[in-house]
Amino acid sequence: MDSSKAIPTMLTVDAKPYPYAFPPSHTALLVIDMQRDFILPNGFGEIQAGNGLEAVQASVAPTKKLLDSCRQANIAIFHTREGNKPDLSDCPSSKIIRQNAQPGNTQHLKAIGDMGEMGRLLIRGEYGHDIVDELQPLPGEVVIDKPGKGAFWQTTLMDKLKAQAITHLIICGVTTECCFATTLREANDRGFECCGIEEATAGYKEEFKCPTLEMIHWSQGLFGFVASLQPLVDVLAPYAPTPSAISSSTPPQTPPAFDGDLSISSLQKAYKAGLSPLTMLETVFDRIEKYDKTDPAVWIQLETKESAMEAARNLVTRWPDPRSLPPLFGVPFSVKDSIDIAGIPTTTACPPLVHVPSKSAPAYDLLLEQGAIFIGKTNLDQLATGLTGCRSPYGIPRSVFNHNYISGGSSSGNCVSVGANLCSFSLATDTAGSGRVPAGFNGVVGYKPTRGLISVEGVTPACLSLDCVALVAGNVRDARTVWDLCAEFDENDRYAKSAAPIQRHVNPIGPQAKRFKFGIPPPEALAICNPTYRRKFNEAVQGLQAMGGHLIPIDWTPLEKAGKLLYEGTFVSERLASLPDDWLAKNGEHLHPVIKEIFDKVVARQSTAIQAYRDLQAKALYTRQAEKVFAYSSSGVDVVVVPTAPTHWTVEAVLADPIAKNSVLGEFTHFGNVLDLCAVAVPAGTYSVSELQGNPNGQGVLPFSVTFLGGSRIDAETLEIARRFEDWIHESA
Amino acid sequence: MDSSKAIPTMLTVDAKPYPYAFPPSHTALLVIDMQRDFILPNGFGEIQAGNGLEAVQASVAPTKKLLDSCRQANIAIFHTREGNKPDLSDCPSSKIIRQNAQPGNTQHLKAIGDMGEMGRLLIRGEYGHDIVDELQPLPGEVVIDKPGKGAFWQTTLMDKLKAQAITHLIICGVTTECCFATTLREANDRGFECCGIEEATAGYKEEFKCPTLEMIHWSQGLFGFVASLQPLVDVLAPYAPTPSAISSSTPPQTPPAFDGDLSISSLQKAYKAGLSPLTMLETVFDRIEKYDKTDPAVWIQLETKESAMEAARNLVTRWPDPRSLPPLFGVPFSVKDSIDIAGIPTTTACPPLVHVPSKSAPAYDLLLEQGAIFIGKTNLDQLATGLTGCRSPYGIPRSVFNHNYISGGSSSGNCVSVGANLCSFSLATDTAGSGRVPAGFNGVVGYKPTRGLISVEGVTPACLSLDCVALVAGNVRDARTVWDLCAEFDENDRYAKSAAPIQRHVNPIGPQAKRFKFGIPPPEALAICNPTYRRKFNEAVQGLQAMGGHLIPIDWTPLEKAGKLLYEGTFVSERLASLPDDWLAKNGEHLHPVIKEIFDKVVARQSTAIQAYRDLQAKALYTRQAEKVFAYSSSGVDVVVVPTAPTHWTVEAVLADPIAKNSVLGEFTHFGNVLDLCAVAVPAGTYSVSELQGNPNGQGVLPFSVTFLGGSRIDAETLEIARRFEDWIHESA
Repeated sequence: MDSSKAIPTMLTVDAKPYPYAFPPSHTALLVIDMQRDFILPNGFGEIQAGNGLEAVQASVAPTKKLLDSCRQANIAIFHTREGNKPDLSDCPSSKIIRQNAQPGNTQHLKAIGDMGEMGRLLIRGEYGHDIVDELQPLPGEVVIDKPGKGAFWQTTLMDKLKAQAITHLIICGVTTECCFATTLREANDRGFECCGIEEATAGYKEEFKCPTLEMIHWSQGLFGFVASLQPLVDVLAPYAPTPSAISSSTPPQTPPAFDGDLSISSLQKAYKAGLSPLTMLETVFDRIEKYDKTDPAVWIQLETKESAMEAARNLVTRWPDPRSLPPLFGVPFSVKDSIDIAGIPTTTACPPLVHVPSKSAPAYDLLLEQGAIFIGKTNLDQLATGLTGCRSPYGIPRSVFNHNYISGGSSSGNCVSVGANLCSFSLATDTAGSGRVPAGFNGVVGYKPTRGLISVEGVTPACLSLDCVALVAGNVRDARTVWDLCAEFDENDRYAKSAAPIQRHVNPIGPQAKRFKFGIPPPEALAICNPTYRRKFNEAVQGLQAMGGHLIPIDWTPLEKAGKLLYEGTFVSERLASLPDDWLAKNGEHLHPVIKEIFDKVVARQSTAIQAYRDLQAKALYTRQAEKVFAYSSSGVDVVVVPTAPTHWTVEAVLADPIAKNSVLGEFTHFGNVLDLCAVAVPAGTYSVSELQGNPNGQGVLPFSVTFLGGSRIDAETLEIARRFEDWIHESA
Repeated sequence: MDSSKAIPTMLTVDAKPYPYAFPPSHTALLVIDMQRDFILPNGFGEIQAGNGLEAVQASVAPTKKLLDSCRQANIAIFHTREGNKPDLSDCPSSKIIRQNAQPGNTQHLKAIGDMGEMGRLLIRGEYGHDIVDELQPLPGEVVIDKPGKGAFWQTTLMDKLKAQAITHLIICGVTTECCFATTLREANDRGFECCGIEEATAGYKEEFKCPTLEMIHWSQGLFGFVASLQPLVDVLAPYAPTPSAISSSTPPQTPPAFDGDLSISSLQKAYKAGLSPLTMLETVFDRIEKYDKTDPAVWIQLETKESAMEAARNLVTRWPDPRSLPPLFGVPFSVKDSIDIAGIPTTTACPPLVHVPSKSAPAYDLLLEQGAIFIGKTNLDQLATGLTGCRSPYGIPRSVFNHNYISGGSSSGNCVSVGANLCSFSLATDTAGSGRVPAGFNGVVGYKPTRGLISVEGVTPACLSLDCVALVAGNVRDARTVWDLCAEFDENDRYAKSAAPIQRHVNPIGPQAKRFKFGIPPPEALAICNPTYRRKFNEAVQGLQAMGGHLIPIDWTPLEKAGKLLYEGTFVSERLASLPDDWLAKNGEHLHPVIKEIFDKVVARQSTAIQAYRDLQAKALYTRQAEKVFAYSSSGVDVVVVPTAPTHWTVEAVLADPIAKNSVLGEFTHFGNVLDLCAVAVPAGTYSVSELQGNPNGQGVLPFSVTFLGGSRIDAETLEIARRFEDWIHESA
């Protein structure tokens, strides 16, 4: 099905000052400002330059060749566009005025924002501002709108590159002396290993090109490398699909069979090769029907097969060309039933709260926009309160590994739906571990981003100030892809965060590129784990060391204390803050008995506002202390690694003692929410059920999971270490 | 005393592509990387270049000439140094490895961090990393340590430039093609109007210099301007002190008389001309003695004249050369007695809390380090709770304008000490308006920075999460100078903030440089003001419009609601959160009766944790909504302008009805703390006491004050608008 040769880990192209080595899966092509305003006659560029456009126009064809070559080799593509908001609020006055202000100026008669022949000059949304037809971005390629000449100033470029784990940049575009060179210099300071492509960059003044490129590679690579186009195209050519597959837009005569793999990259490949999403859905709905017989508690509301098929048909109509599909085209996903989808009841597994929203959560809309197919809403612990999966009026989902064991919660149905291969990924939530614990118990990835990166609008509040939309997926790459596509600043989310205040450089080459530092809980903290978990955790630690991790001691105290704040302090009171004062009295009898008991206890505590402010001051203190744990210095770690949960209970054990058994499970998750860390739970092998205490006759295996926690907004870096661990687990399996 | 000609608002120097116009008081000289490692033999530069250092060494003399010329004309000076932390945690691996990795490399045999002849190469703290002897920074000049080639990446340069209201940069240093050009390009994107100085920049490869400079000024100024050294020196020369004053380090035979002006810039000039800080202190202590007779309630603990004199003598010993003094040399200041100074009791005007700290608040230490002289600790409303100044066991300070009227509080003594000209500035606090209201009632400037910019370590907590160190000064420039010198990230302050996440560009030229947008409260909100205040506020608004401000409508709701949260909600409970549970019961009888009543009421409310979390969610919502008010777009304003207080009470009126009269005063201050805005109260003229309702026979005048509020961390921009208003008030007086 896949006609291209597998691309190697590293490629090398002849370059100045010496051959440029780059890892294709960590390399992006950055196409700078190939906009009509800079390339076409009467655009801003011609006004700027005051003379002909020959060189920049001549660079379109080689740039197209480079772009095609990178696209075919699956190199990530980033485009930039220089321009300003229509109100010019993002444009310094010097940029508008300086060139026009020259005494006797006869050249710059029009400035940024003035009306030109292709609309207002350099203004976003205008025809002239967009990229020339030949180089138009394909779905899924990133377009960065930048107000300055450097592409890192006032943009999300750094975040977007990191979200794709990019460390190497191949740079082209216009103009060589200006935006191309400025951006390459910025990228170099940020650690990216850069290579400019000589034929695919040009400027308005020929004399500037040569010294600009020479300054880049002078002194054995002062800012980076410069390569010629053809050698690079030659290096990438073997990894392109066969010519027949790319020269025809009609699908192959016989559509390929579906191999059943729902991972996003596998589906992307399959759709590119002609698979129909309808074929995929046949498989998925077969699986759902079968699985429902062994575990009927996964879904609260399932889409009909027909409506899913209809959605798939609409996708095919919208994106008919298999060479140009959005990244989530035909990717099936489920949604926790505490997240709104317009027109479908949101139950939050709590009958008194059921309502039919008129608006969907922003993350849902963003994923649909990228081609994803919604399959159904999944079961959860009532009010997203609980880590067991045993607290729903819609039944108790079971671990996909062994139905005697709990699925974990509160995102129980999410994790089962992905673990049982019923969909590719799932939108869950995580307020105290709800996205991680059930991921761990079902052998899937559960990722809680830093709070505020994915909007929680349209999510039933649990503890509003701690609530996160979490992502469940079959592997870390998929979780990262989904995150990259649905993490968008939402001004309606009062806790939304915009760009990262502290940006760390990347380490693209040398031993530093593989090296990372990690901390773990001290033995006394790990004592809560069952012996099998301790053994498995030790194995994971050894694995991390074997793959280049340095285990260094950390101060566990702030993490431990922060965890205790969540349920021993007043924070649990916030669970009642989003409900009216009389809600519990009125609705208590309709609640799950365990939830009612918990809420009654919260009320009985009579926590005071004074206590709440003390807890918040303590939280701020521990957060500051935890920042030191994760500091970017020789004493800080990149990640803290913990067992996702301390043990795996049977359903029976939880039902016998629901509250105590639940609270054990949050030992290694709670502090992540209180301290606003990011966290990703990753499968770390399996163990025999018979090994567990009190179950010598158990059959089969259960999954083990470790969680990687990173500093606030250090999501991309944390995910990348988790991904490398996942690869290591697979390689060493 | 001042032998130099007053410098005009704008200067112009011949340049390419056309004459460069710059406002000296908004211009900085930026000297890039004139470090031993780049200039001296066997440094990192020679390794980098692989050849001679002639050109860079030859640039030292012209750079020195430029530096001297700018220093003499009082142009702000910024130096940069490229280098990394000893653990290299801030250095990308590509920067360490790339140049060494060339196959057959014989040039880059040593990398960053390796031991060279002047210490480890490019490592902070090493001899080679520092600036060459000829160009060593003087006290008060800013030194920016940068890990990259561009000086804006991972540094505080942007914040530091903005803190001095810099919009124009004269740039020199090494190397032209590398750090000089990269920084100039970064500066240009950020809006700074830049001019490179041809003779004062050099690189290791002569061929690069010409095209690098040409790219800057090509196309009528693509990135900025390039000027020659001598014309600039000629332009600045008339504004230097006379040669005799600068060529001799011995003070003039007859030390100048002290004119009594305690403003920082006036003192700086006087000390430069030879004034002794001992002479200044004689005047100050005379004034204090006299003032004590009319208002004995200003100080809680005053330094003895002898100990202040001793401090002054130590300053003179430490900095004997009047040409090279730190910015606060000999500047007298007072400190609110809720801020710790090692060895002096902190009373917080609350006998049960008195303690003698062993450590001073960080801001105090930083100011002393800059040469400031501590005069004494000032009176305050007990526990910094109150806005009247009438709640202290140490007496009631009075407005310096009229002793029948309140001083305002809680920073009562601070504002009187500055308003009565007893010191230049004062360290105060502001949790709900405590730094602004008394500033308004004493005709001085009260500036509450964004929370977390100045450490609150060593400050007795009021509401810890809202507490700010505030600055009281005679004018906005002085407040800004003090802020710039004592705002330093303190990892021990749990609410400390580091670099600004969103950086706004500057608008250096054109009408945009003068234009700003402001909002005001709606008429119904202003109705709380007395008629005189409404009249004065209208005048201020007209003034703001006359000086270039655009009044645009704003959504007042989030500001209003946030203000109400502070005392009508649970936030006041945080005032008790820093005290033990039984503290009030044990110490109530020792409290000021008004404070006791307030605290008893807080306890009686029995606010619950649930209510607290609701208030915090509301706070987050209003904060997000307020962000839109201050958004950097056509619909957002730069500042919101309000009357600092709605009225000015007599002491008698407050004593008759202490709580109600107090609460009126916070109408326009409370929301600034809840929403984490920055705010600066600025005198806005005076009015006749007889004009006030109920006081037709009143004598003299009272001060009116308006407060400028800006978005979180938009302190520098907000201060600059306030400064311009202050100038306008003086010019139009």
